[in-house]
Amino acid sequence: MLQQPVNKTELETLGEFGLIAHLTNGFLLQNESSKKGIGDDAAVLHYGDRDVLVTTDMLLEGIHFDLAYMPLKHLGYKAAVVNFSDIYAMNGKPEQLTIALACSSRFPVEALEDLYEGFALACKNYGVDLVGGDTTSSRSGLVLSLTAIGSVEKGKAIGRDGAKKGDLLVVSGDLGGAYVGLQLLEREKSVFLDHPDAQPDLEGYDYILERQLKPEARRDIVELLSEMGVTPTSMIDISDGLSSEILHLCKNSGVGCALYEEKIPIDPTTYNMARDFEMDPTVCALSGGEDYELMFTISQNDFEKIKNNMLVSIIGHMTDAVQGAVLIDKSGGVHPLTAQGWNSFKPNSPDQAEEH
Amino acid sequence: MLQQPVNKTELETLGEFGLIAHLTNGFLLQNESSKKGIGDDAAVLHYGDRDVLVTTDMLLEGIHFDLAYMPLKHLGYKAAVVNFSDIYAMNGKPEQLTIALACSSRFPVEALEDLYEGFALACKNYGVDLVGGDTTSSRSGLVLSLTAIGSVEKGKAIGRDGAKKGDLLVVSGDLGGAYVGLQLLEREKSVFLDHPDAQPDLEGYDYILERQLKPEARRDIVELLSEMGVTPTSMIDISDGLSSEILHLCKNSGVGCALYEEKIPIDPTTYNMARDFEMDPTVCALSGGEDYELMFTISQNDFEKIKNNMLVSIIGHMTDAVQGAVLIDKSGGVHPLTAQGWNSFKPNSPDQAEEH
Repeated sequence: MLQQPVNKTELETLGEFGLIAHLTNGFLLQNESSKKGIGDDAAVLHYGDRDVLVTTDMLLEGIHFDLAYMPLKHLGYKAAVVNFSDIYAMNGKPEQLTIALACSSRFPVEALEDLYEGFALACKNYGVDLVGGDTTSSRSGLVLSLTAIGSVEKGKAIGRDGAKKGDLLVVSGDLGGAYVGLQLLEREKSVFLDHPDAQPDLEGYDYILERQLKPEARRDIVELLSEMGVTPTSMIDISDGLSSEILHLCKNSGVGCALYEEKIPIDPTTYNMARDFEMDPTVCALSGGEDYELMFTISQNDFEKIKNNMLVSIIGHMTDAVQGAVLIDKSGGVHPLTAQGWNSFKPNSPDQAEEH
Repeated sequence: MLQQPVNKTELETLGEFGLIAHLTNGFLLQNESSKKGIGDDAAVLHYGDRDVLVTTDMLLEGIHFDLAYMPLKHLGYKAAVVNFSDIYAMNGKPEQLTIALACSSRFPVEALEDLYEGFALACKNYGVDLVGGDTTSSRSGLVLSLTAIGSVEKGKAIGRDGAKKGDLLVVSGDLGGAYVGLQLLEREKSVFLDHPDAQPDLEGYDYILERQLKPEARRDIVELLSEMGVTPTSMIDISDGLSSEILHLCKNSGVGCALYEEKIPIDPTTYNMARDFEMDPTVCALSGGEDYELMFTISQNDFEKIKNNMLVSIIGHMTDAVQGAVLIDKSGGVHPLTAQGWNSFKPNSPDQAEEH
């Protein structure tokens, strides 16, 4: 399915240092905090009175991505953006990125150029400087390890530990799309493996494919909250699924949570695709992950400021820790949330939850 | 050869978050710059008026290390220390570390505990805080990607680009030991594979084995230079071999270099071991790598301050760029340096250089 680059230049022709120079050639430093980038033992940054944020992420071929349907440019973009998302989830602004990469010699230089095009586009779109990295060979697949560095006004980082009983639980955008997008790609890959001459049937599914292949980090939400004068009491990004992230907030803040199923924002494309796969759309939202939306808690005093904003949804409220984290379904039934959705969740079991 | 831990607990029993919590349990924050460590979307640091240094490194099983003879505790120690070395090579002080790790389920929890014991010991010895990471599964071997963060007085970072014509070239410690240590380990591994009941013959080789298995970063040299009032004009650590690092300094500083073979510091154990392997000890020092010594250039005005110091050796001087980077051998012959030693270098070709 994936178009391989037509030109193939062997990696050895450049050597490690030549390769790094070649790939990072167009990257210029744009942030005042970036004093010295690639080309020394370490990058040099200066943040003055701001707090510095650091997050890291490792992605492996065959575990986190499948090059059969993930174009390398998209992979580069996504790998960078998911790290930026973690910086935004602290109320910060990403400013630098380091990229450590291992690949086998089967990768031609042109493939890595595609990957770096993705990194470059993400850096451009989010105003981030590439300041360092490591490039090495791998015996098996492609391995990426990215570290994003950002900053936030001193003392203004928002962690997972500040949610209070009575706070409202809010999420940006909609959920479950990246997960059903992945199911669609997996299905088309199976079809392709069985019938190599078949054309993939991806028409009309742009939204969920983009959610999976080219997610964006919600910088706009961080800026919006600042403009509205709303300071969340806690914040996290949704990488592992709504359920898992709610449990993190509850555990770190020492509170419980009541989540209302009917309030969970799900796009119609996501809903219909989930139904086509005979899956519960709510389960896809709770457990699918990779949506990279921001979830945060706000004081009830801030309700008026956000209640009419179309970019966010109020999906529940925080409770006493003893009440635990629960989902209240559309019929009023109460189900404890688990990291996998709720207790009865089993992958690909349609409507499992509704059986309880 | 490697002793496997006796107890084996399957990784799945803990789950990803449980595993991270278990492994990072004993790590406490010690640096004032570490405001918030593990457990949120990103770590929070504050450096105030100091410059921040960031370096990253990826290590793969089968490429950078062989678990047949590299105990996991040593691997953890070394993986951390080589990153600290990059921070010292900028004239800085390492303060934080993030660890991204992928391993297959064949690793029991106890194996990862050994690895983290190594990380913990390195962090303790060098006063560094573990502040973040990522733990994921791998289909093949163990993959580590570490990012070290440190600081230096504003504007005092020392790069690779400040060497001037006439500056003296200085190196700490001695070279080639890690490389011959690796050759010894490889030889004993071959013997073991052919004769599984044979005992490894490693008696009397502690020094070179330690150079390979448990290197140290030269914090003492950075402190010494500061105490002596010597500010290097450029600095780099020796990870890829003396030749390669000299070429980096020359290229980045726009100078040439005259390196004197007879001045290259080589420990007697290294020398004798190289001879046993029918290798040229000078070639081992030039191209072996992994010594993690510091190499730096100083103004001739600082000669008196360091000339009698036993911890460092003056091995050459910087010249005009047009003169290139050359080795002057013990007979006065002049050989252009290449990243692989000098032109005639071929791996395992004994005394190749002397044929020219």
